[in-house]
Amino acid sequence: MEEKNFYDLIILGAGPAGMTAGVYAARKQLDTLVITSDIGGQATWSDGIENYLGYVYITGAELVKKFEEHLTKFDIKIEFTRVVRLVHDNGLFTVHTEDTREFTARSVIVATGKSPRMLDVPGEKEFVGRGVTYCATCDGPLFSGQHVAVVGGGNSGLEAALQLMKICPKVYLLELEDKLRGDEIVQNKIKGAQNVEILTRTTVTSIYGEQFVKGIFTRNLDTGETGQLDVTGVFVEIGLRPNTGFIKDLLTLNRWGEIPVDCASRTAIPGLYAAGDVTDVPEKQIIVAAGDGAKAALGAYSYLVRLPKATSDWSALVAS
Amino acid sequence: MEEKNFYDLIILGAGPAGMTAGVYAARKQLDTLVITSDIGGQATWSDGIENYLGYVYITGAELVKKFEEHLTKFDIKIEFTRVVRLVHDNGLFTVHTEDTREFTARSVIVATGKSPRMLDVPGEKEFVGRGVTYCATCDGPLFSGQHVAVVGGGNSGLEAALQLMKICPKVYLLELEDKLRGDEIVQNKIKGAQNVEILTRTTVTSIYGEQFVKGIFTRNLDTGETGQLDVTGVFVEIGLRPNTGFIKDLLTLNRWGEIPVDCASRTAIPGLYAAGDVTDVPEKQIIVAAGDGAKAALGAYSYLVRLPKATSDWSALVAS
Repeated sequence: MEEKNFYDLIILGAGPAGMTAGVYAARKQLDTLVITSDIGGQATWSDGIENYLGYVYITGAELVKKFEEHLTKFDIKIEFTRVVRLVHDNGLFTVHTEDTREFTARSVIVATGKSPRMLDVPGEKEFVGRGVTYCATCDGPLFSGQHVAVVGGGNSGLEAALQLMKICPKVYLLELEDKLRGDEIVQNKIKGAQNVEILTRTTVTSIYGEQFVKGIFTRNLDTGETGQLDVTGVFVEIGLRPNTGFIKDLLTLNRWGEIPVDCASRTAIPGLYAAGDVTDVPEKQIIVAAGDGAKAALGAYSYLVRLPKATSDWSALVAS
Repeated sequence: MEEKNFYDLIILGAGPAGMTAGVYAARKQLDTLVITSDIGGQATWSDGIENYLGYVYITGAELVKKFEEHLTKFDIKIEFTRVVRLVHDNGLFTVHTEDTREFTARSVIVATGKSPRMLDVPGEKEFVGRGVTYCATCDGPLFSGQHVAVVGGGNSGLEAALQLMKICPKVYLLELEDKLRGDEIVQNKIKGAQNVEILTRTTVTSIYGEQFVKGIFTRNLDTGETGQLDVTGVFVEIGLRPNTGFIKDLLTLNRWGEIPVDCASRTAIPGLYAAGDVTDVPEKQIIVAAGDGAKAALGAYSYLVRLPKATSDWSALVAS
């Protein structure tokens, strides 16, 4: 049997935006495919969520589970892969995936979120999952009792250090600038800890080890002095970048690589919608992503039902 | 003691958009006042909600209770009154209420939602709450065993009829056009019911009764023929209008009287935000209202913290 690869709607990503879009699309009985590398996205990493209305407190993992339960109530198809290119031709969108498959649809919702920014130093890629991590909330507990380094002195770096200093005998906190950048109140907690050593104006030059990480080499940006830290965990917390590489030839992105949308989650291309952290909506919040995911799916529905009858039979035409 | 009437932020309305904005504002420690005539808005009327992510199923009343619980965890002030005018002068917003009070703030979020459209016929106002109702979900059960009329053959009228035909021996469904307008699938259910009588091209000319409604007078738009229906309940389901009368001199509204917003819930005036059903966002959904309410509050926060220091001391200045 040949694989079905024509749909009314393809949703890229299954974080809060993509999953909400999926529920709304399913309720409108759109023939929908979700293409994603994971379920939950960044929301999964949230330790405690206190600003998703409906729950005074819930963990990220629990909330993602509730979203997933809602989505999988419907007969909606999910392909676990990654999109590498999105092509728009003659009113149709074709999604190319990293496993060299193609899926076509009359409308697409981009909800691919953001990913952690990498250090881009020797050893980093080799040791991902073997000492190098981008999520303190997810992986922190695995490093209990070990010496670790946190790279990045903004809010996410500070929060990683705050978490790790409770379970690790030694935490190095590395920052490029001459002082930490996150909230004062968190900075003060960290500065008061005996087991945290703050290294400002310091960059990582490489990560080394055998099967697992054994340490990092560092360099002071002012003196040029190099150093070596014996750590078995490296927490990279230097920001996030939107997952929009696959779409950059199709749309004009903003200066941060985000997709511009209007108040109804529409992009500049009819039939193409975007929602969640991947967009230029300034506030990156689960409830915002969910709301905009709903808008995108209902927008796609309105778009699809208004297509001329002839065009709406495209799948039969293309398949023949 | 003189009443405090200067705030960082005033939120108008406490439906899903206003309440979410309130939670986000409180978490940012903004000095916030909520001015509203009720808690929950239209969401309260929803019988069953199956598209608020996080809950596969919840009633409107239950979800509103959860929102309210979240909001009232914070020390946030709520004034139960109605806004009649919003004035913008010298960077400050002044809210005039129907009980002739004034409240001033540096930023405002309009989340006043929509209200049911009225028939505007003799007897309607007199019998509101005594037979005339605008919410079948809320009031339907009160009319069990009685003869009722539903005015409006769109989706909300059809849903009212669907609900009432299960508990009322006789349901009249009145529509101005020559056929019903709502979803086919619901139409078919209603057309198959023995106790529903559909009257097309029919308008209500007046509502009569004594202490409670006793009936309505009707007129056929084609023949001019008048009629009389003995009903004790009149369900008016002819659409909604945005509650924007108080702001129409300040902002250019769209053709439906809605407030235009961008992807970040900003209006055309700096410091003035809008969220929920009152905006031109096409999709009127609880989760959309909540997401946009969060955007509005975080947007107001960013706006306020960026005001010049001198201006941020305005309350001391104005009070002196």
